[in-house]
Amino acid sequence: MAYTKEDFKKLVEDIQSQDWYKNPIGFGIARVDRGQLNPEKILQATYPLINWEENYGSAAVLLNALKKAGNNVDTSGSELVCSVSDAFLAECIESFRPYIPEAKGDAHKNVQVISALSSLPIDSGYTADDYKVVFIFEDTDAKSVESAYLKLYALSTGKAALRSLNLNGIFGQLHNVAWVGNQPIELDWLRENEITLKLSGQYPSITKVDKFPQFLDHVIPADNTRVLDTNKVRFGAQLAGGTTVMPGAAYINFNAGTEGSVMVEGRISSSAKVGAGSDVGGGASILGVLSGTDGVPVTIGENTLLGANSCTGTAIGDSCILDAGVTILPGTKIALSEKAVAAIKEINPDKEISTSMKGADFLGVNGVHFRVNSTTGQTIAMRSTREVKLNADLH
Amino acid sequence: MAYTKEDFKKLVEDIQSQDWYKNPIGFGIARVDRGQLNPEKILQATYPLINWEENYGSAAVLLNALKKAGNNVDTSGSELVCSVSDAFLAECIESFRPYIPEAKGDAHKNVQVISALSSLPIDSGYTADDYKVVFIFEDTDAKSVESAYLKLYALSTGKAALRSLNLNGIFGQLHNVAWVGNQPIELDWLRENEITLKLSGQYPSITKVDKFPQFLDHVIPADNTRVLDTNKVRFGAQLAGGTTVMPGAAYINFNAGTEGSVMVEGRISSSAKVGAGSDVGGGASILGVLSGTDGVPVTIGENTLLGANSCTGTAIGDSCILDAGVTILPGTKIALSEKAVAAIKEINPDKEISTSMKGADFLGVNGVHFRVNSTTGQTIAMRSTREVKLNADLH
Amino acid sequence: MAYTKEDFKKLVEDIQSQDWYKNPIGFGIARVDRGQLNPEKILQATYPLINWEENYGSAAVLLNALKKAGNNVDTSGSELVCSVSDAFLAECIESFRPYIPEAKGDAHKNVQVISALSSLPIDSGYTADDYKVVFIFEDTDAKSVESAYLKLYALSTGKAALRSLNLNGIFGQLHNVAWVGNQPIELDWLRENEITLKLSGQYPSITKVDKFPQFLDHVIPADNTRVLDTNKVRFGAQLAGGTTVMPGAAYINFNAGTEGSVMVEGRISSSAKVGAGSDVGGGASILGVLSGTDGVPVTIGENTLLGANSCTGTAIGDSCILDAGVTILPGTKIALSEKAVAAIKEINPDKEISTSMKGADFLGVNGVHFRVNSTTGQTIAMRSTREVKLNADLH
Repeated sequence: MAYTKEDFKKLVEDIQSQDWYKNPIGFGIARVDRGQLNPEKILQATYPLINWEENYGSAAVLLNALKKAGNNVDTSGSELVCSVSDAFLAECIESFRPYIPEAKGDAHKNVQVISALSSLPIDSGYTADDYKVVFIFEDTDAKSVESAYLKLYALSTGKAALRSLNLNGIFGQLHNVAWVGNQPIELDWLRENEITLKLSGQYPSITKVDKFPQFLDHVIPADNTRVLDTNKVRFGAQLAGGTTVMPGAAYINFNAGTEGSVMVEGRISSSAKVGAGSDVGGGASILGVLSGTDGVPVTIGENTLLGANSCTGTAIGDSCILDAGVTILPGTKIALSEKAVAAIKEINPDKEISTSMKGADFLGVNGVHFRVNSTTGQTIAMRSTREVKLNADLH
Repeated sequence: MAYTKEDFKKLVEDIQSQDWYKNPIGFGIARVDRGQLNPEKILQATYPLINWEENYGSAAVLLNALKKAGNNVDTSGSELVCSVSDAFLAECIESFRPYIPEAKGDAHKNVQVISALSSLPIDSGYTADDYKVVFIFEDTDAKSVESAYLKLYALSTGKAALRSLNLNGIFGQLHNVAWVGNQPIELDWLRENEITLKLSGQYPSITKVDKFPQFLDHVIPADNTRVLDTNKVRFGAQLAGGTTVMPGAAYINFNAGTEGSVMVEGRISSSAKVGAGSDVGGGASILGVLSGTDGVPVTIGENTLLGANSCTGTAIGDSCILDAGVTILPGTKIALSEKAVAAIKEINPDKEISTSMKGADFLGVNGVHFRVNSTTGQTIAMRSTREVKLNADLH
Repeated sequence: MAYTKEDFKKLVEDIQSQDWYKNPIGFGIARVDRGQLNPEKILQATYPLINWEENYGSAAVLLNALKKAGNNVDTSGSELVCSVSDAFLAECIESFRPYIPEAKGDAHKNVQVISALSSLPIDSGYTADDYKVVFIFEDTDAKSVESAYLKLYALSTGKAALRSLNLNGIFGQLHNVAWVGNQPIELDWLRENEITLKLSGQYPSITKVDKFPQFLDHVIPADNTRVLDTNKVRFGAQLAGGTTVMPGAAYINFNAGTEGSVMVEGRISSSAKVGAGSDVGGGASILGVLSGTDGVPVTIGENTLLGANSCTGTAIGDSCILDAGVTILPGTKIALSEKAVAAIKEINPDKEISTSMKGADFLGVNGVHFRVNSTTGQTIAMRSTREVKLNADLH
């Protein structure tokens, strides 16, 4: 008797109705890189596909297959990491059967992953234990390298919003390793083999030493996105389509990034984000919560220009300009002429604008041009010449 | 009967006198990298040699050989791109015959290219169609990837002056691709193969995603030139011998660069150029025409020091100093003492110098030291201590 | 008759008592990379182990073995470079015999090097002449690539203190070459083979052109040290354990670095050093003796914060803060209120503090917060909020 899509639907409903079952927040299957000296040490987890608040049918199939394959499937914890087994794959293939013929291109990606796993050549160098089925049920501290990577993937693929995830525990879970491109190497292995490797001319070309890989090691950007130097974007950063990251003084840390087409020639520190159409000038610094801000993550609005070597430690609105070299911290005293107050008030009718403000007072204020008067050295604000889209609700 | 150099000369004259013939501005033979999914998409063109306003004899031989090999040789368009064929190569070899024995080292490079092409091993992985003979007859918008690369080569080899070429259309012609070092990969190919590549541990180490390759992917710098990080110089930039590009915050974009021995630790934006003996300090920013200037490309003179984290949006003369952290934009108001006016006037007798100037007023003014008075915050200019070579014609 | 550790000790004493013998400052055995065109040109020297003011027993054995193997062992010069030979290795093995069984892990590293050299496979691609035994007897100008590398290793492994070595002659000895990761290539070889390499698709992916390799090409950092981009740390730099070097605008040149756990997001120029617990903010510049300082190498104290895009050209004490964007050069005039003078004096009782100081006057002054008053543009100093450890000897 043929097993149909209708049967698949019933299977999923049946699984989801069982007591032990719980929908995960995110899940996926990863290939792990293990320590050269200590194979118990997971150095990296590579996901061909991740699911985040989606594809619960596939989640049900995978959890059910793990259970049938004899794994202890405990959905009461915050996460679950199981090794792939032949029994698990066979069960998945059986359940996914009606979708296998059409699992191509963008369709049924989870089915594609199972098919690809099932048909890996025997001499791939990896064993079933190098593939992990990973579920996150609660967004608490990461308890494994695999779940830490799953969260970073959720951010870097744009499936989870910046600042929306609990990233505690990630630094603790990841190991500091040497990288040769996207291949991690234990530092201790290098130490043990340094003499032989160096004398025989086999010492590897280390490209970095860090806990994190790069964004481009794991994520394929949109066609109109450019990253001119892979070292400039850490894994866990988010780049909206149309973003360009230049190789001069740019850097985007994890849990930071862009929400639209942005030119990035400066630094976007962890927790900071920049709106569509904005320009982070050469060497401009957007500070992170750990240094120079008042603890509030910095948001830069849309269509705003941060000039070369400017520095921002507090929120800046839409259509603003910071002149090259200007620093605005939360406590920076900024003077406005009566004319400037009126002009800025006109486009920000619901905001308090006065002749003497601090950097932090400009939260949500649009169309401001921050300058240093080169005659007096005074930091001033005036109406920006950049077009401001007025909020229709306010008028 | 022996074919001699005299015969070659007559051949060239004969070709050049024909109606259809026209001397090209530039020409060369490129190997092209094609899309992995779409082989019609040219991802990169690599020229072992380019000719720019030179070697018209070789141009005549190549155009004639294309014609004899049956190509439609239309010299009335702005450019011509033809595939190499055995007939073309045979015809070239025949014409170049007297030069082949002495085509070694720096002699007869075009003949060397033809010889090398003729003797490529059959299993090189490339076909005749992967080699293109390319001519530019008019400096209009690039109409192909091959001609776009030829122009970028002309700039990066120093055969064409910075700002001298029409670069419109280059962004449109080049495809945004992933790079593994100097190998371009279609993003769509990565997407189609992501699951298999990642599961099998074959996902490539992407080094960047951009339309342009790097300068060092195509050009061998002078013996006294240093580029400490290939990501810091885009293809299409120009580096005069003796230039050093440091890996901190430096970047040199295409159609920008140096005209002599320059220490570069900061950014030289597209269209900007820096004279011999100058020093672009750590994090210093020279703005491009698209951001912060008044639309005039910025030229920095000779023997000038741009201090760390300074920012320049307007022309600066010879033997000037910008103090670290100082920003000079076209509209920046700058104060000069009477003494400073006199001292600067002394070495710039033909310039208007006054006690109140703007940044843009210093065009062509030499020997100026720009500072911010740390007591008053005022931006000031005084006589620089750097030696100024006076223009003998003026005295 | 068994040769024992006691015999080894006697052998060493005997060698050391001979007239010709002299303890070296540093020594090691290097594998050298030779020029592709000119094999006499040494492009790089890779040491699996270096000794610096230590392990004089091994030094004696190596010098003695060279002598017995027929080398001209002249210890009266500043350095000695000899090729390895089978006779030399046999003599070393004989002398080191009692230590060979226990030469594992961290024990008897020099013995391990000799053992590894003796058991290199015959087809390693290297000959005995590619291995050099190198000694430095006097810290004068480097006279060979091998001794230049030995000094840079001494700095980068932390065995010699920053600024403690004579580095003259190093630039002169090292050749400017193209690098493909850690493999050096003569520029002339690239030029000679450019046509064939490019046409056949074999042109290498050059990663930089410089005289120096990178720190990570030769040194394995501590487990808690991170270098997020290998290009950011030149060989000859020193990184104390716990240092993190970010990939934005950071750079650490040779003979510069950190003396404890430091976050580095800015530039540490040659000759500059930074104390434990300090933070070099994004784009911050610490100037080197060649640009912007008064010729005194800049030392940054412990627990000090240099804000983003700040610039320092003079010594800064412990527990200081430079606000983002602030520049302090030796001659910068800095104003202090009476209250600030008193508060700073309190924790620096032995220093001259007044209401008008210059940057250079703050040498050894702790707990200072440098700012620019955003209302007046004046550069001011006040008491920093960072905790200052008072010197117990002074109280």
